[in-house]
Amino acid sequence: MSTPDAIRWNNNQLELLDQRALPNTCAYLSYDRAEDVAHAIRDMVVRGAPAIGITAAYGMALACRQCGEQPSVAAWTKALAAPRQTLADSRPTAVNLFWALQRCDLVVEQYGNGPGLGSAMLALAQQIHQEDIDINRRIGDHGATLIEPDSLVYTHCNAGALATGGYGTALGVIRSAWREGTIRGVIAGETRPWMQGARLTSWELMQDAIPVTLATEGAAAQLMRELTPSWVIVGADRVAANGDVANKIGTYNLAIIARHHGVKMMVAAPTSTFDRTMDGPDIPIEQRSASEITHSQGTAIAPQGCPAHNPAFDVTPASLIDAIVTEHGVIHQPGRDTIAAHLDKATTGGAS
Amino acid sequence: MSTPDAIRWNNNQLELLDQRALPNTCAYLSYDRAEDVAHAIRDMVVRGAPAIGITAAYGMALACRQCGEQPSVAAWTKALAAPRQTLADSRPTAVNLFWALQRCDLVVEQYGNGPGLGSAMLALAQQIHQEDIDINRRIGDHGATLIEPDSLVYTHCNAGALATGGYGTALGVIRSAWREGTIRGVIAGETRPWMQGARLTSWELMQDAIPVTLATEGAAAQLMRELTPSWVIVGADRVAANGDVANKIGTYNLAIIARHHGVKMMVAAPTSTFDRTMDGPDIPIEQRSASEITHSQGTAIAPQGCPAHNPAFDVTPASLIDAIVTEHGVIHQPGRDTIAAHLDKATTGGAS
Repeated sequence: MSTPDAIRWNNNQLELLDQRALPNTCAYLSYDRAEDVAHAIRDMVVRGAPAIGITAAYGMALACRQCGEQPSVAAWTKALAAPRQTLADSRPTAVNLFWALQRCDLVVEQYGNGPGLGSAMLALAQQIHQEDIDINRRIGDHGATLIEPDSLVYTHCNAGALATGGYGTALGVIRSAWREGTIRGVIAGETRPWMQGARLTSWELMQDAIPVTLATEGAAAQLMRELTPSWVIVGADRVAANGDVANKIGTYNLAIIARHHGVKMMVAAPTSTFDRTMDGPDIPIEQRSASEITHSQGTAIAPQGCPAHNPAFDVTPASLIDAIVTEHGVIHQPGRDTIAAHLDKATTGGAS
Repeated sequence: MSTPDAIRWNNNQLELLDQRALPNTCAYLSYDRAEDVAHAIRDMVVRGAPAIGITAAYGMALACRQCGEQPSVAAWTKALAAPRQTLADSRPTAVNLFWALQRCDLVVEQYGNGPGLGSAMLALAQQIHQEDIDINRRIGDHGATLIEPDSLVYTHCNAGALATGGYGTALGVIRSAWREGTIRGVIAGETRPWMQGARLTSWELMQDAIPVTLATEGAAAQLMRELTPSWVIVGADRVAANGDVANKIGTYNLAIIARHHGVKMMVAAPTSTFDRTMDGPDIPIEQRSASEITHSQGTAIAPQGCPAHNPAFDVTPASLIDAIVTEHGVIHQPGRDTIAAHLDKATTGGAS
């Protein structure tokens, strides 16, 4: 796989590939402080639910180093409270962020009363990072079993190597299916306003020589009718207890349009993306600045003062999703019961 | 109405408001030659089905002047063949273009054997122009009768004053409903890749102080669920004999998403937009350059060489349309029979 790492630990610093400058410029930014890492997440230097989780864990490792040594779990918890909160506040929708911070909390509890919490936290971040790559390969292989030969598939935003530790979730499925020879091409929605489809997904797929064709979001229905893809395949920022899925704005459009055309809808996401504490309508949706829509490349493309709605995510109801694929296998016709059974089986080690 | 004219005849020249530079720059380009007018249509200086028809008629008036005097209908027909073809080839989907050229043909037949065809052709262009404004006001008033009080409506692309001789089709309905006090706001889809919603529709509505909020195409489903608009209101580039409607790419998306949410779908179009010779699947869809998607403001936003699908229009099946509104009234549940009855009644003068 030739896509560069979105996240790397190098010279005792966190390095993030600046995804805002891709595909024209491929450059890393370096981070020493948790607060700066939080800003990088908010400013979209790094994006994608699994990548945000990994980045937050590295941010906590940096925070530990910033705090020096602390005498106790209580002292560590107090010292880490501010950077932890800043990281938690960086983006509200992707649950992997909170999942990663909770794993960090456990390390504080386990190691906070002795020396070496800093190295334990770094080891955790690196473990989460490596786990994510392994998980994505399993997601990809499970998802690929659903792809019929000679398939054209449709994806949205970037749920690829750049959105994860590596390999990708939705693009992991596409990579595995391409390896199996069942995919003949990919349509990538450009994904306004940040253009992750145009800038990142097409770039990743072109580097792997997987045939990709870009399209505006507005062309989805016409292209589904003309080109008859077999699946829409997307990632997720949060999978709710009832099977509803929060993902990049535009996903819910695609799910409705896909169902109208008899195209199946697949969500590829690690179990760290699942949130058993809430249903779809309760998921907080990040509202971003109107200027992301009214301006492009620094130039106004709308009249001065024009208001804009800019929800960064939408929630697709479970009823429009044919399969959710995790590292443990496939949830067909996802809903409250099938999700619970899948997660329970995964926790007890019963799933593959 | 404070929106400047998209088309004007001034100092014996055709002047077109350069819509590519709006809303930042409001400037007119002048045309003396039919071939240059055809380029202006192709290059989107002027756009919108009714406006293209009007512009083509002015183009034929310029062509007559370029030809000097000709002795006969046959000589005129021969002399005008090349510029007429260039105009006809400028854009393939909007049928008003061909409708206007056919009206020009009748003027050639009527006046071609005597002097004064040039002034007759100019008079026709001016008549088509003025008729269009009157027609749009009637469309607007008919459409407004369908809008319930306290409505939020959703529009796409620009079917406004800028797309027509003045007042607009979809925006004509919105203007009339605003005057009636039944509309509380408008959501405008930005309309990638040319951003007619962001650049033109929001500008027109802001000038008339009608509350408008911009959104990406990808946000449509989430916003319909959250904000419950009562109608999607769009224009048309061609209404087929079976009631299918070709319009700006993204319209078919909206129709599917609207039906899913119980939002009604209205198409506002003059009868010059109707084409009784073909059904929806036979409408030619203009495919435009991939570079319109891969580049923005002259900067690459996709990897070099990335392919893109760029259909400029899509076809919405009649079954997803609740009402088509013309200058003669409302066609509810449009289909082959209701369309034929409406047009026959209009032709015989029976419709209001």
